[in-house]
Amino acid sequence: MAKINSNYQKLQAGYLFPEIGKRVRAFSAANPAAKIIRLGIGDVVLPLPTPIVEAIKAGADEMAHRESFRGYGPEQGYDFLLEAIAGNYRDQGVTVAPGEIFVSDGSKCDTANIQEIFALDSTIAVTDPVYPVYVDTNVMAGRTGVADASGRYGKLVYLPTTAENQFNPPLPEGKVDLIYLCSPNNPTGAVMTKETLARWVDYAKKNEAVILFDAAYEAFITQPGLPRSIFEIPGAREVALEFRSFSKTAGFTGTRCAFTVIPNELRVRDESGAMVSLQALWNRRHCTKFNGVSYPIQRAAAAVYSPEGQAAVKANVTYYMENARLIREGLASAGYTVHGGVNAPYIWLRVPAGLTSWQFFDRLLSEAHVVGTPGSGFGSCGEGYFRLSAFGIRENVEEAVARIRAKLPA
Amino acid sequence: MAKINSNYQKLQAGYLFPEIGKRVRAFSAANPAAKIIRLGIGDVVLPLPTPIVEAIKAGADEMAHRESFRGYGPEQGYDFLLEAIAGNYRDQGVTVAPGEIFVSDGSKCDTANIQEIFALDSTIAVTDPVYPVYVDTNVMAGRTGVADASGRYGKLVYLPTTAENQFNPPLPEGKVDLIYLCSPNNPTGAVMTKETLARWVDYAKKNEAVILFDAAYEAFITQPGLPRSIFEIPGAREVALEFRSFSKTAGFTGTRCAFTVIPNELRVRDESGAMVSLQALWNRRHCTKFNGVSYPIQRAAAAVYSPEGQAAVKANVTYYMENARLIREGLASAGYTVHGGVNAPYIWLRVPAGLTSWQFFDRLLSEAHVVGTPGSGFGSCGEGYFRLSAFGIRENVEEAVARIRAKLPA
Repeated sequence: MAKINSNYQKLQAGYLFPEIGKRVRAFSAANPAAKIIRLGIGDVVLPLPTPIVEAIKAGADEMAHRESFRGYGPEQGYDFLLEAIAGNYRDQGVTVAPGEIFVSDGSKCDTANIQEIFALDSTIAVTDPVYPVYVDTNVMAGRTGVADASGRYGKLVYLPTTAENQFNPPLPEGKVDLIYLCSPNNPTGAVMTKETLARWVDYAKKNEAVILFDAAYEAFITQPGLPRSIFEIPGAREVALEFRSFSKTAGFTGTRCAFTVIPNELRVRDESGAMVSLQALWNRRHCTKFNGVSYPIQRAAAAVYSPEGQAAVKANVTYYMENARLIREGLASAGYTVHGGVNAPYIWLRVPAGLTSWQFFDRLLSEAHVVGTPGSGFGSCGEGYFRLSAFGIRENVEEAVARIRAKLPA
Repeated sequence: MAKINSNYQKLQAGYLFPEIGKRVRAFSAANPAAKIIRLGIGDVVLPLPTPIVEAIKAGADEMAHRESFRGYGPEQGYDFLLEAIAGNYRDQGVTVAPGEIFVSDGSKCDTANIQEIFALDSTIAVTDPVYPVYVDTNVMAGRTGVADASGRYGKLVYLPTTAENQFNPPLPEGKVDLIYLCSPNNPTGAVMTKETLARWVDYAKKNEAVILFDAAYEAFITQPGLPRSIFEIPGAREVALEFRSFSKTAGFTGTRCAFTVIPNELRVRDESGAMVSLQALWNRRHCTKFNGVSYPIQRAAAAVYSPEGQAAVKANVTYYMENARLIREGLASAGYTVHGGVNAPYIWLRVPAGLTSWQFFDRLLSEAHVVGTPGSGFGSCGEGYFRLSAFGIRENVEEAVARIRAKLPA
């Protein structure tokens, strides 16, 4: 008699963004004339830059001829892309070998799948608030208990990350095995300094823990001296792996390409206590469950690193960060307490006193026709906060800020 | 202290195809003048048809403009593609609703990931020989014991599928929960009739089992009356889900697109005995761990169903099936016992007496410079068999057959 994986029944309601979508559709159906501005889901809006579009088309043209047609490629990605990624790390002052890079179709997939190569009884630490995928995939795998009234799952170690600690997650009090860190942070927009990250690397070494470092937003760091890669920290290669993505950096949310770096040195124990290469395990998973990214899309990803591609994606990042400034300053002058938005495309604001995050969501939608993301959707410590994304068309961002100032001053 | 998922250590050696690649590279390095013909891995060689290439390029062009740019799409696939797939099923006489379809980046991924939504203590039946992904992903998840000397994993139920039973897997003797079936079959090239499939549907109903039906090769069926979808069988919608792919059908091995159909009626029990929709579970997994297929690639997949696309892909299938005929008849006339190759792009031949499958692999490589796939790589009942793929350029196929006839008559 077939049975379901009952861990799925522990999952809280719907995944955050589908729930937002549902509420927006309902409002829109009831108010067809309302011009809704979406600063909720972190989705880019600027078109793909020309050099990237041309690379997809050139890749497609290669597929049209027998001599240049590409069938199955290496699961890990083509050398031309691995070399380009390694070159970009080199430009950032970090040494990563092409053989340490695994190209995939998204950081959501990679951060979701990485838990598979670790023991089922691993103790997991996550920040609170947190990108829900880290948590939900461990719930599905059976590494957690059920959720309590606040939405926290049993067995997970939550690290409260709020204004009270300047959005710097505290080190776990006891020992944990795996730690998900995201910097620049989604949703708070905070960035870890080298000193902070060095403390985490030190913790991981002392406890034989592994840091799963999500650097999907590294391109948005504007202040010098802040680490874009955990591998800028001495010793990190022995305790950390890193996720990066073309989604936000280069506008690939609908084009789909990302990668994970697993250093040669990263080893953890098996049941017998012997040290095993995580790169080898991930490679085995990648080869067994994945067949590589579409060839024209890998060409597009490589084009991101061309001089023209770099200039174009940097212009887009600058555009979004100007949006971030407008939101941050506009809301601050309307009386809101705002965080983030300096080295990250997210503004994390305090909702007005007396409102929950979802109540603020509903008011913002119904009164200002602006969509954001309720902080509580990212965890119980996100209650009372709200995320606005800088991924918008300038005039919409300006109008959204003007509407919030007019209709919903803090 | 972080620990690995120790189930990975139960996995046998390398995944089959990387091992083949290694041996071919070694031979090639030692014999640089040898012109190697590859009929091993099931990878297509004909270029992507023009209407499909043009669709990728048109999709890329849409991404270049703000008005038509696409960011995150629906995880399940765009409506235009879901409708086209449902339309193709309708043309084949099968009713599938767009909402039952989940577009992905490959059937390898789908057949690898599907086990996640079932209980860890599920009893799994697989044919022997079998596509290794079905087995390896259950090993990784911990549903098996260790492998014995023949390579069979404990707890798995193997269904011997050989010439002795006309490559028709027997029903399991006891109860199993999940059954992987592949028709047309990789690697044997055999196809299940409606009567045979109806017996499986009946078994599944009686035992509350679920059939995971891999129809990746349905386009290669040439004889009328054979089922292309398990949903042609009455009652199958309550006990089966189906995988299909553009990889072999339309030459998408390097372009990456596939889909899984999970009928509304398909329900299995949870711990409490209540019936739960597998479609809802898979949807949750899909939304949490996947972000949809690249937009230009979804456009390409939809173009497969245009009249021009259909004509082009049918011409390619016909080309490959003529290859299959040449291999089948050429080897038969050289004294080989051959199976498959009539409704499938694979020829499954008996290796000459006294040789193992890998010994024949090495002789074929070193004497005829032809690469095939050892049957034992697909399971212990594949020992003594060998798979040749019809995915080759005509003149190479002809030369390979001529070389085998000249150098290695049976």
